[in-house]
Amino acid sequence: MSIPPSRALESIRGSAIRDLLAVTERPGVLSLAGGLPATDLIPTGRIAVAAQRAIADASALQYTASTGVARCREAIAHLQCAAPEQILITHGSQQALSLLAQALVDPGSTVVVDDPVYVGALQSFQAVCARIVALPITGAGTNVAELETRLRSGLRPRIVHTVSNFHNPSGVTASAHTRIRLAELADQYGFLAIEDDPYGALRFTGDPIDPIPGDRVIRLGSASKILAPALRVGWMQAPPSIVGMVERLRQSADLCGSAFSQLMTADLLSDTGWLADHVDRLCAQYRVRATALTDALDRHLGGRIDWRPPEGGMFCWARLHDVDTSNLLPAALYQGVAFVPGRAFAVSDDLGEYLRLSFATLPPAELDEGVRRLATALDHL
Amino acid sequence: MSIPPSRALESIRGSAIRDLLAVTERPGVLSLAGGLPATDLIPTGRIAVAAQRAIADASALQYTASTGVARCREAIAHLQCAAPEQILITHGSQQALSLLAQALVDPGSTVVVDDPVYVGALQSFQAVCARIVALPITGAGTNVAELETRLRSGLRPRIVHTVSNFHNPSGVTASAHTRIRLAELADQYGFLAIEDDPYGALRFTGDPIDPIPGDRVIRLGSASKILAPALRVGWMQAPPSIVGMVERLRQSADLCGSAFSQLMTADLLSDTGWLADHVDRLCAQYRVRATALTDALDRHLGGRIDWRPPEGGMFCWARLHDVDTSNLLPAALYQGVAFVPGRAFAVSDDLGEYLRLSFATLPPAELDEGVRRLATALDHL
Repeated sequence: MSIPPSRALESIRGSAIRDLLAVTERPGVLSLAGGLPATDLIPTGRIAVAAQRAIADASALQYTASTGVARCREAIAHLQCAAPEQILITHGSQQALSLLAQALVDPGSTVVVDDPVYVGALQSFQAVCARIVALPITGAGTNVAELETRLRSGLRPRIVHTVSNFHNPSGVTASAHTRIRLAELADQYGFLAIEDDPYGALRFTGDPIDPIPGDRVIRLGSASKILAPALRVGWMQAPPSIVGMVERLRQSADLCGSAFSQLMTADLLSDTGWLADHVDRLCAQYRVRATALTDALDRHLGGRIDWRPPEGGMFCWARLHDVDTSNLLPAALYQGVAFVPGRAFAVSDDLGEYLRLSFATLPPAELDEGVRRLATALDHL
Repeated sequence: MSIPPSRALESIRGSAIRDLLAVTERPGVLSLAGGLPATDLIPTGRIAVAAQRAIADASALQYTASTGVARCREAIAHLQCAAPEQILITHGSQQALSLLAQALVDPGSTVVVDDPVYVGALQSFQAVCARIVALPITGAGTNVAELETRLRSGLRPRIVHTVSNFHNPSGVTASAHTRIRLAELADQYGFLAIEDDPYGALRFTGDPIDPIPGDRVIRLGSASKILAPALRVGWMQAPPSIVGMVERLRQSADLCGSAFSQLMTADLLSDTGWLADHVDRLCAQYRVRATALTDALDRHLGGRIDWRPPEGGMFCWARLHDVDTSNLLPAALYQGVAFVPGRAFAVSDDLGEYLRLSFATLPPAELDEGVRRLATALDHL
């Protein structure tokens, strides 16, 4: 029996990262590959309390509105300084990307992404057969100068997508100028900017930068990185007209989210004193881990590797000169360490010398050991 | 600011049922409209125990595989007499419909549905711009005779969808002959049959009928109706090649489901003694409620209404001769009762005299009062 896939499915690039998970879950492999937040930093006890509180009311276990439970929309709106009508709760912020792509993008419509790209975003736009235009990211975020040149030459994207803080995978944070310019171009040329921001709260050095301004911006956020991935609570903040469009589509996608999970999340996000302390602890720990990783890169790979010093988030983007990191990966796995080769995130550029290293998942000693193994793999290449 | 919707979004019919929810949630309205299982029959205490057990291990709060947590796939496979590799866990079975439509249907591809149709399925196929062919359902389920005639005349669907047990909204259960014939036609003409079965366990009279046989069948199931909707656990059972295709698409849709929720579900589904008792209690209660509803139809609307006696599930499909039930609805809401007019489920037929009444949501006394109000509304029409 041979079942042909749809053209939409055929146009999606497989995620090397997800495929790697199978390997990295093998015992003995230290994974610098995944985007998993630290399991030992998930506030399990507080979440268990939230679960018991939510379940006390059986209506927490019923269906709920496609936009989300009112109490959770309000808690998120408060956090985002937005109105509840601007918030739609999704099954992780990946679902927001997927629903926005389906609601706003026709086959052949242009979508602009950064290069390297967050692969989940690329896949969502590929799944609706968008025409992808990738602009090489700069140290100040989305390449707004290049974007403007292309817009002047007639490029008319429906959407420009970026991860504004601690970009996955490049680690770059968009400057205030980039954000303001992107908003101006969105107004001038009539596209929507998607500001994908799962990592913004995880800043451990430097000052936060205001989000992209204006009313042609859709902001995506997530509870996965600050509370727990299994809550599967993400959200979009958008003009109510777009919330209405996504709400309508969501009925066919999965009817609604989990009232139980959203009530737990509302409890956690509304406990502002606890939340602030918890996020402070997370940032402090991630700073320790980022330093452990970069110290290890110095110690074991000094002179052979360059990297962008992480200011937050979960990833360190690095470059091994004259090494094809896709070829390095099998050797690294053999030594018991995993990472993601740059090419997994490349759209138009090659990025074959780059690699993404996560410092979030492992404790400091294992980060050091992982880098030591990586150096051994490189020696054996 | 005017943002154009995608053609896909424009082609989705709004769900009158979901739109009605806003009205039916007004205090004082008795809802015979929604597809909500009885909140008072949700096993809250046992679910709370499952939540505490699952959360004891912090890995329950991490990301998980796109196909689902192994333990939950195994529990579902056991329930379905299938292999775990045939199971993919989705965010409710609605997500399975949506992902299957995206993975298997190209714009313009033909999909066959029953008329009346489960609106969520229709929307999922509309969202990928399928060509919809609706065949009037018979008392024995999908109209396989008409389907065969159309296939002989050259119809080549990718998918034939049906709700096999206690069809939503018509209440029909497909006969053994219908199921076998559908499987034969699937083999002969190369389409896939989707056997959507959220209600099969809720049989309170008559004998269960074996599922559609063969290897061109995708079976969808759900924990929403037997455990709780907020678990958001549904599943598909399909050949591993199709599981693989949907897994790949799911990465762009929402990455993965909730490990927490799936571990809770695995706990509940594996507790087979408790589960059997719980489902028996549900069936007994739903039988009482179905009888309360049809007794009330006799009492308050006798001679003016026909209905199909429910054998299970949650719905009673009824017909008021020479009444346009879409016109009746505002009068009914004014009297404080809600139902769904037949036209909400119609594809090619008119079904203007039909209505869907849910007996699952309300206790017996309120079902009687709801029907009394419906009769009053009819008198005032």
